[in-house]
Amino acid sequence: MGSIGPAKDRLLVAFFSDLPGRLMTAIQAKFPDAEISTVVLPRGADIPSEHAQKATLLVTFTNLPRPEDAQNLRLIHFISAGLDHSIHHPVLTSTKIPVTTSSGIHGPPIAEWTVMNWLVASRKFVTTSESQKKHEWGGPMKYMDGLSDQVGKKVGILGYGSIGRQIARVAAALGMTVHAYTASPRPTPSSRQDTGYVVPGTGDKDGSIPVSWHHGTDKASIHAFLSLGLNHLVVAVPLTPQTTHLLGAEEFALLAAKVPTHHPRPYLTNIARGKVLDQDALIAALQSGQLSGAALDVTDPEPLPADHPLWDAPNVQISPHISSLGNEYFPRALDVLRENLARAERGEPMLNEYKRDKGY
Amino acid sequence: MGSIGPAKDRLLVAFFSDLPGRLMTAIQAKFPDAEISTVVLPRGADIPSEHAQKATLLVTFTNLPRPEDAQNLRLIHFISAGLDHSIHHPVLTSTKIPVTTSSGIHGPPIAEWTVMNWLVASRKFVTTSESQKKHEWGGPMKYMDGLSDQVGKKVGILGYGSIGRQIARVAAALGMTVHAYTASPRPTPSSRQDTGYVVPGTGDKDGSIPVSWHHGTDKASIHAFLSLGLNHLVVAVPLTPQTTHLLGAEEFALLAAKVPTHHPRPYLTNIARGKVLDQDALIAALQSGQLSGAALDVTDPEPLPADHPLWDAPNVQISPHISSLGNEYFPRALDVLRENLARAERGEPMLNEYKRDKGY
Repeated sequence: MGSIGPAKDRLLVAFFSDLPGRLMTAIQAKFPDAEISTVVLPRGADIPSEHAQKATLLVTFTNLPRPEDAQNLRLIHFISAGLDHSIHHPVLTSTKIPVTTSSGIHGPPIAEWTVMNWLVASRKFVTTSESQKKHEWGGPMKYMDGLSDQVGKKVGILGYGSIGRQIARVAAALGMTVHAYTASPRPTPSSRQDTGYVVPGTGDKDGSIPVSWHHGTDKASIHAFLSLGLNHLVVAVPLTPQTTHLLGAEEFALLAAKVPTHHPRPYLTNIARGKVLDQDALIAALQSGQLSGAALDVTDPEPLPADHPLWDAPNVQISPHISSLGNEYFPRALDVLRENLARAERGEPMLNEYKRDKGY
Repeated sequence: MGSIGPAKDRLLVAFFSDLPGRLMTAIQAKFPDAEISTVVLPRGADIPSEHAQKATLLVTFTNLPRPEDAQNLRLIHFISAGLDHSIHHPVLTSTKIPVTTSSGIHGPPIAEWTVMNWLVASRKFVTTSESQKKHEWGGPMKYMDGLSDQVGKKVGILGYGSIGRQIARVAAALGMTVHAYTASPRPTPSSRQDTGYVVPGTGDKDGSIPVSWHHGTDKASIHAFLSLGLNHLVVAVPLTPQTTHLLGAEEFALLAAKVPTHHPRPYLTNIARGKVLDQDALIAALQSGQLSGAALDVTDPEPLPADHPLWDAPNVQISPHISSLGNEYFPRALDVLRENLARAERGEPMLNEYKRDKGY
């Protein structure tokens, strides 16, 4: 690993579509001394030998080389946050080439998507926008009742990872209090740190924003968390057998019962996976008014069929799994790689390194 | 003033419409020992003697008592931020009854309105919302290009008062850098403080958020500020003869020319008054693409006539002067009064006190 450094590398980018010119320019700017090439491949396909053999650094979404073509490869960097889809690939199981992910880069866009949805709902943006289309001023009386702001409101973040932390940062600036939930206990300051990549100027690296921390994987612990009197619940847990249908009728009723009576009913935000919620129970809770609304970037299934009742549930805002997207996605994934090359050069541990023995 | 205190006061609320029951409950909760009464009057009308004479505290929007009816009145508290409309009223010119305003309470709702508009524009919310209405998933390819986030972006706040400070707080949490502009110089830490009422948990009381401070009332100073390479300009100055048409064709061209070429063109937010902008020049700058969009809570004139071209200017988001509204408005105005009564009780100077000799 002694020769790791940005100079003289042959960096291969494997993706499922052509990269726009502005991205190629951005990549070259970030690695001015590297020889950069790209290969367009179907998702999951192996990288052909003639591309793979030359590369010293691989930046990839789902494509990997065969182990025998990886002799010059000193680092595989995934531009995704996880690599579940690839852990059984021979280059991961039968070589020791370091593998890193882009976990941490999703915080800013998904936090912006989340807060945008909260404010659109609480400040009646759709009403304003419809009035504008009709050239109708409308005026204040239309808005006197029902608008409210976020100051002093409580948000519970179920899954306090890099995304939850940036949501927390913005929520705190809005004057909200943040309550964090994690699977395992975080009793000490060091256990509360974010040890992965953090986009500079964002997040909650030292875990100092939440006013309370909660944990557990059992129903009683989740229910205690949902009983805090939350105005907002943000669902940001990974989908596992344990988190499938983690929240259903009982949980929505609990949330609704515990929020102060003079506040709007709780608002739900799901940026995890559709199956973490019992979607039929969600529709019922929106219809009954137990929940005042929901922002959903994920549904079950995706795409959501045109005749699905979720589309028209009251006060639901649905987007097609796009909350992490943006011009910054690819450049940030490369920032992680660049940071890790600098760390390797200095003999320091890399960020977001996949541990083959642990499987994550 | 020795008897000032929340106990045994007769608090009169004068407003142009009936207050909802939840507000009366909130007022009574904030002043549990006071005898509370209300009077509904046309805007600007004098308060009839039978209401005015009994009151020890007056909470008002535009109505004032005649001086001879104010013998028991020890404080007049306006629920508006300013009182320009009332400074020539005899009770202000010919008595010494202390007068306070609710300046400072508008920060949270207007900052939420501002940031909501930024994010709606940058994250294509209207596209998503239209797709949802049609039950169309759409999917990521529709959003791959053009979405961008606010991290590292520069916002210039023209008029760094209580509203600008809460915008700054949220902008900084989003990862933006804040550049402040004030009419008079703020060279020292103490000159940068917000000395008025601040909603707890919000704002920038000590003025520590901006990375740079700028000032002046001449064109050259404004132009230097607009040349910082701003991605966002927020207009938050009071309307005066000097600020009328402060920003026009020349200023929009300057903003557009100075933003980095690989960024979207600048986005304009006006939460001041419509006449601060040359509105025809604004429409032209939106049509030419010099500005990538604008969020306007104020227009010239108001209401904006149905046939006005501003309604359909490209990427403009208009709302009918509602950005400060919300359920919290009235209770917060009363928080200022309560804080001031406590200060008077302790012999401390009140917040937001109108200085008759200075006229503000």
